[in-house]
Amino acid sequence: MSTTVLVINSGSSSIKYQLIEPEEGVVVASGLVERIGEDEGLLRHTFEGVDTRLTEPVPDHGAGLRRVLELFAEVGPDLGAAGIVAVGHRVVQGGARYSGPALVDDHVLADIEELIPLAPLHNPPNLRGIQVARDLLPDVPHVAVFDTAFFSDLPDAAATYALDREVATRYRVRRYGAHGTSHQYVSRTAATVVGRPLEELRQVVLHLGNGASASAVAGGRAVDTSMGMTPLEGLVMGTRTGDIDPAVIFHLSRNAGFTIDEIDDLFNRRSGLKGLSGKNDMREVHGLVAAGDAGARLALDVYAHRLRKYVGGYAAVMGGLDVLSFTAGIGENDEIVRAEALSGLEFLGIELDPARNAGRMSEPKVISTDRSRVTVLVVPTKEEQEIARQVIDLV
Amino acid sequence: MSTTVLVINSGSSSIKYQLIEPEEGVVVASGLVERIGEDEGLLRHTFEGVDTRLTEPVPDHGAGLRRVLELFAEVGPDLGAAGIVAVGHRVVQGGARYSGPALVDDHVLADIEELIPLAPLHNPPNLRGIQVARDLLPDVPHVAVFDTAFFSDLPDAAATYALDREVATRYRVRRYGAHGTSHQYVSRTAATVVGRPLEELRQVVLHLGNGASASAVAGGRAVDTSMGMTPLEGLVMGTRTGDIDPAVIFHLSRNAGFTIDEIDDLFNRRSGLKGLSGKNDMREVHGLVAAGDAGARLALDVYAHRLRKYVGGYAAVMGGLDVLSFTAGIGENDEIVRAEALSGLEFLGIELDPARNAGRMSEPKVISTDRSRVTVLVVPTKEEQEIARQVIDLV
Ligand SMILES: Nc1ncnc2c1ncn2[C@@H]1O[C@H](COP(=O)(O)OP(=O)(O)O)[C@@H](O)[C@H]1O
Ligand SMILES: Nc1ncnc2c1ncn2[C@@H]1O[C@H](COP(=O)(O)OP(=O)(O)O)[C@@H](O)[C@H]1O
Repeated sequence: MSTTVLVINSGSSSIKYQLIEPEEGVVVASGLVERIGEDEGLLRHTFEGVDTRLTEPVPDHGAGLRRVLELFAEVGPDLGAAGIVAVGHRVVQGGARYSGPALVDDHVLADIEELIPLAPLHNPPNLRGIQVARDLLPDVPHVAVFDTAFFSDLPDAAATYALDREVATRYRVRRYGAHGTSHQYVSRTAATVVGRPLEELRQVVLHLGNGASASAVAGGRAVDTSMGMTPLEGLVMGTRTGDIDPAVIFHLSRNAGFTIDEIDDLFNRRSGLKGLSGKNDMREVHGLVAAGDAGARLALDVYAHRLRKYVGGYAAVMGGLDVLSFTAGIGENDEIVRAEALSGLEFLGIELDPARNAGRMSEPKVISTDRSRVTVLVVPTKEEQEIARQVIDLV
Repeated sequence: MSTTVLVINSGSSSIKYQLIEPEEGVVVASGLVERIGEDEGLLRHTFEGVDTRLTEPVPDHGAGLRRVLELFAEVGPDLGAAGIVAVGHRVVQGGARYSGPALVDDHVLADIEELIPLAPLHNPPNLRGIQVARDLLPDVPHVAVFDTAFFSDLPDAAATYALDREVATRYRVRRYGAHGTSHQYVSRTAATVVGRPLEELRQVVLHLGNGASASAVAGGRAVDTSMGMTPLEGLVMGTRTGDIDPAVIFHLSRNAGFTIDEIDDLFNRRSGLKGLSGKNDMREVHGLVAAGDAGARLALDVYAHRLRKYVGGYAAVMGGLDVLSFTAGIGENDEIVRAEALSGLEFLGIELDPARNAGRMSEPKVISTDRSRVTVLVVPTKEEQEIARQVIDLV
């Protein structure tokens, strides 16, 4: 009998799940519940190439997960027969405390709750997901895998803001990062692909999805990352500003009369690619650029400029660069962004091969030339498989 | 008869001035008025090696400048005999409009006033200084020299935040930079020192004073800079955070109950070196480090880490680096910071010469080895001489 892990990502109005064979990283089944709490919920379950879609009210997360378990029973696979040994839960904020996955107990639940002020949008639904899953699947261990864990032991020089220490300590202000599971998976996979020991490599990982983050990974250990106390800092994202003078907030508060909540919404949901071009989806940005749209061209220029700055900055932090990997929706599929992000970086020893860079990738692939000093890769991220792997290592 | 320019820097409670022979950059006389509006004001005037110090009430900027002119008459030099041909005024914020010095007329005054929302602490006293100086010295032209001018034509990719365009346009949110006169002077002087055409060089300038900023200068033109819409963004400073996740403001507003004004004060006046170590003066930070203080050690580490990130980032923005210059109080005097800022950057072709780097410098000096691919310099900044030079070029 095979061994499987059920990986759950519980959001404010959705539950995404995958049933995974962790050894091989095979996804046996997957699905999602959306619009929880709305008039009509959506359910989707995929098993053996068959897509089941349902529309029905899903009042809360408990009802949603109960329906998911019914779908497993009705459509398959049977969870018992599938050898489910654990449930892995993605949790966004683990603070400075969790440097790896944690077997869920009351203490861990209390910690996740206690960290809500640092991730007010994410930790509450993550917590809810764990609670309902434990009720419905009480016989297997549940494991929390934190998005921040890979960055929990960043060097102090990278993790510390130049802020009053008392305020920072009291309100727990530091760089926690995010997308850690992806950066960890990609940097480890990249070492395998280039066939060199992880311990020897200075790597930059560019995770470019709707959210986007860069990390510097030296010897397998994260030494810097672009997301900060929250996922707002760093690269230009689909709808987020990334780096911006914090005094812009003071300025807009005083001169535009915006409230903090309005500025939060503006920076997190109406900025980034969307703020500059009107579109948060990079494919649509390219469409506008092709049609001669100046705002979209500017969006792409600002996006690539920020990426170059981070690549150079992280090379400096590590004293050099050996491997650079692109991942996530844009990183895996967008040859234009990959080329623009690295243009002018020949002085770092980066030489992209245009033919290798062409196209979308679903498997790890080298896209630099053979003589490029830095090996540039596309490594499709597999956060759920990485969660399953970490879970199986723990239980 | 010599030709001189009176350079005035008018702050909220102070007026600093220098009488300069612009051709040679000779400072004929200098001084300052402090504590304007307080019970006791301070005046200091230096001419021919003689320091005159006075303590007396100085009710306002007009009274202050009147006393300065009296000191010129009493102590010397006589302004008429000194051949004063113009007055140059430092103005912090010139917006995107002023790419060079401007002969002051009602239109320029209106512009400086109109830009107050972007520099609420600086433009009002700058404006006041111009007004009282024009009243008292009506027979010479007055010239405004803007701190932002050198950065007014940054490439759009560097000047634009990934913010909603309508909001950005309406409230004029963009990167204006600051310390422009210093970055311009230092980058031009550096080209002379290395004996190569400015047009050919890719330079980084690190202006490290109480305020601190980095710039990337390619072919004599600024292509990026670390200060943003305001001087809060970028490097770690004496009392300012520099770069920080903007969401820290939302967090402190919600969880600490701080007002915007309190957070502004916290970020601008109680953070940076002071926030981390208790001391905003780098000499005192070193003193604490020597005594084994962990907070001071952390402050220095965060300071140097940020610098390395910017040096690498700006090399990437320019596609390489030829010359790097240190300037201002810390840059000119602090060999430890210079060494730590560049440690690990050998891969960029930077090789510091420890003997050349030792000590404080009052003249431009090469501090890299002869075989270093990047020439590293200390170039003492002379903002007032640069202002005088720009003024004389204009009038
Ligand atoms: N073929 C493609 N070319 C360019 N961008 C693409 C392509 N396919 C997907 N993307 C982009 O990937 C982004 C979403 O990435 P993804 O990793 O799925 O995001 P999330 O952060 O939501 O997991 C979108 O901006 C989308 O436009
Ligand atoms: N010998 C020195 N060693 C280290 N730092 C010094 C030295 N002399 C001055 N400084 C530092 O220079 C900084 C002030 O720089 P300065 O350019 O005068 O500032 P600003 O013009 O921005 O007010 C202070 O942090 C001070 O400690």
